[in-house]
Amino acid sequence: MSRNDYSTQWDELAQVKKELADRDWFMGTSGNLAIRVSASPTAFLVTASGKDKRKQTDEDFLLVDERGEPLKDTTLRPSAETLLHSKIFQSSQAGCSLHVHTVPNNVVSELYGDRGEITFKDQELIKAFDKWQEDDTLTIPIIHNHAHIPRLAEEFSPHVTGDKGAVLIRNHGITVWGRNAFEAKKLLEACEFLFQYQLSLLTLKNIKQPI
Amino acid sequence: MSRNDYSTQWDELAQVKKELADRDWFMGTSGNLAIRVSASPTAFLVTASGKDKRKQTDEDFLLVDERGEPLKDTTLRPSAETLLHSKIFQSSQAGCSLHVHTVPNNVVSELYGDRGEITFKDQELIKAFDKWQEDDTLTIPIIHNHAHIPRLAEEFSPHVTGDKGAVLIRNHGITVWGRNAFEAKKLLEACEFLFQYQLSLLTLKNIKQPI
Amino acid sequence: MSRNDYSTQWDELAQVKKELADRDWFMGTSGNLAIRVSASPTAFLVTASGKDKRKQTDEDFLLVDERGEPLKDTTLRPSAETLLHSKIFQSSQAGCSLHVHTVPNNVVSELYGDRGEITFKDQELIKAFDKWQEDDTLTIPIIHNHAHIPRLAEEFSPHVTGDKGAVLIRNHGITVWGRNAFEAKKLLEACEFLFQYQLSLLTLKNIKQPI
Amino acid sequence: MSRNDYSTQWDELAQVKKELADRDWFMGTSGNLAIRVSASPTAFLVTASGKDKRKQTDEDFLLVDERGEPLKDTTLRPSAETLLHSKIFQSSQAGCSLHVHTVPNNVVSELYGDRGEITFKDQELIKAFDKWQEDDTLTIPIIHNHAHIPRLAEEFSPHVTGDKGAVLIRNHGITVWGRNAFEAKKLLEACEFLFQYQLSLLTLKNIKQPI
Repeated sequence: MSRNDYSTQWDELAQVKKELADRDWFMGTSGNLAIRVSASPTAFLVTASGKDKRKQTDEDFLLVDERGEPLKDTTLRPSAETLLHSKIFQSSQAGCSLHVHTVPNNVVSELYGDRGEITFKDQELIKAFDKWQEDDTLTIPIIHNHAHIPRLAEEFSPHVTGDKGAVLIRNHGITVWGRNAFEAKKLLEACEFLFQYQLSLLTLKNIKQPI
Repeated sequence: MSRNDYSTQWDELAQVKKELADRDWFMGTSGNLAIRVSASPTAFLVTASGKDKRKQTDEDFLLVDERGEPLKDTTLRPSAETLLHSKIFQSSQAGCSLHVHTVPNNVVSELYGDRGEITFKDQELIKAFDKWQEDDTLTIPIIHNHAHIPRLAEEFSPHVTGDKGAVLIRNHGITVWGRNAFEAKKLLEACEFLFQYQLSLLTLKNIKQPI
Repeated sequence: MSRNDYSTQWDELAQVKKELADRDWFMGTSGNLAIRVSASPTAFLVTASGKDKRKQTDEDFLLVDERGEPLKDTTLRPSAETLLHSKIFQSSQAGCSLHVHTVPNNVVSELYGDRGEITFKDQELIKAFDKWQEDDTLTIPIIHNHAHIPRLAEEFSPHVTGDKGAVLIRNHGITVWGRNAFEAKKLLEACEFLFQYQLSLLTLKNIKQPI
Repeated sequence: MSRNDYSTQWDELAQVKKELADRDWFMGTSGNLAIRVSASPTAFLVTASGKDKRKQTDEDFLLVDERGEPLKDTTLRPSAETLLHSKIFQSSQAGCSLHVHTVPNNVVSELYGDRGEITFKDQELIKAFDKWQEDDTLTIPIIHNHAHIPRLAEEFSPHVTGDKGAVLIRNHGITVWGRNAFEAKKLLEACEFLFQYQLSLLTLKNIKQPI
């Protein structure tokens, strides 16, 4: 495959990268993104390791196979955590997967880490995950941050149960996926909104006195 | 009516949309905006459903009648909550109506939700709502977030008592309207400032020790 | 005087306005700015009332005399609080004066309002006010927010004791002045940094447990 | 040396300056930056004193020797704290050094100041400092903010033990250095992320009740 064969996906992922960079969601060169190019066999674009994601270059992404190995000769290395994107594209029909570190998603992952999950209810924004009924709930699992990526990917895999979803990695960040880049970004934004809300409410509910 | 007949209103609403998007007030594709095009019969532009509001396109808005039904053949769907904008344009001479989700407006709506309202006093910014005297107060009602939009619109309606105003929907967001886009945006900004102030003050007043 | 006679000052003030607007420090059309054009008799440019300060137009400022009255025929009205800028330019050789509302400056003004002032010590940024020694302190007075502007100006005046300074108006905002636009902006930024610092530290010092 | 001899370094430092200015990390004209131009004898570019770092001009930086003295006739003065950059370039092979004031780095430096350091563990972002093992820790020293810069530089020096590192100066800011501008910026971002995380977690851990 040549660049022409996946220029649409490249441009979509570049656009998402720019928007997330505008929000400063890649502090310390953290974060990595992937978009599916082919379903069978699985091939996807993934962010190259060690790049400044606030810049747009021709070396931002590289094409890899289902195991996350480069499909072409290249000096670029795929992101260290490419294996998590692989698991998503192998186990679902998701088209795009986003992994970002934000302060709120890290703090939520630590506060609720021992519980292994966080659940949202009575919040309009859970509709982003097709939760339309008044008593619907959204639960996001929180997994341990294994330094060994294959071990991390193994713990991550069972949570990929559909074409869209979200998993928090404790003190590490969130991975969100959807059928396409638009949906993945929408779900990521909804999660980050809910995390910010939860932290603000926790603070205020516990210290509020009658006023 | 052709696009030429309402290009001024389109451009005004597009400009407001851009400013609110710059503040990241449409997380997870949330939020919707409307501007009146005609008074009798009522016709207004409203944001199309499911669009990325950080982009500017020719499909961002569509023209609807007083019931929120499209006035032309179109594949676009009006925002699910168009009915709330309808109620405003039917019951008042407001020219513009804005609905946005922010973390502070959601947290305020939850903290004061059981009380059904929040009141501001001794705050310079309530002047935005024509509260000029030193002992004037501004009260913003908070209503339940019914998942069924017609039921939500019914609870919303009685609060439209003038050409400008604001209503919080619990854990959902705020709807603000004014005589024109400039005024609606001014009132929205004043509300968001007051909410941020209130949350910060609540935190600090309750934990402050003499220092 | 024609526009050519004060185009330098106009451009300087427009540049400051743009920077403060980029930080979103004019929520709800709040805030007003002034720059001196002539010393004797006093004449200065001041923001016109009711404009959107995120936009740059030829009607953003108008020229007024020492009492704040327009020096030319104009449909523009000077900001309601022009009288405070007048007091500064009359009582000092300051060249620029900035009044902005931010959430932190409002919260600080309320928390320390009964005390009538806030004092900073052991903070690098007080050097902006020429406080260079290790035990130097910076004190910013906090005055009552009289709705009647002449009354407010009267309470404000005694605090204009030099060519640079800062005064908080309770739940209303800060007014900062300096010898020129660059200095006024520098002092304003230093104040806002110190306010943000103080609120964050207050929260943490009081709730911190050994960890 | 003429400007041509160090245009690459100039452009790199200008780019870093712009990114940090976009984040508003130079409030009140605070902060200063340096990049090495030559190793032996040591020569480096450093920010000129008293400039608005949100602007890009030909006078933003000047070339100085290992003692921080200008290498050319110039009206520009090197930043008052140039001596700290000197110490870094003299004692290591670092290529770039960044000093910025942020509210979170100031608050952390005060909260942990008596302890003289802050340590991070179980946080993904410490990998930026090559801490790859699950039980690795990152410790950042906190030194007293001597008003006398040579005294400050003396206390700072012993902490320059490698080609990359970070030191907090109490209520003053952080100085971070790396082998090049890209690395220095990456480390700075990682530190700021960790500080924001720590402050948020401290608040929440101590006030959280079961919910």
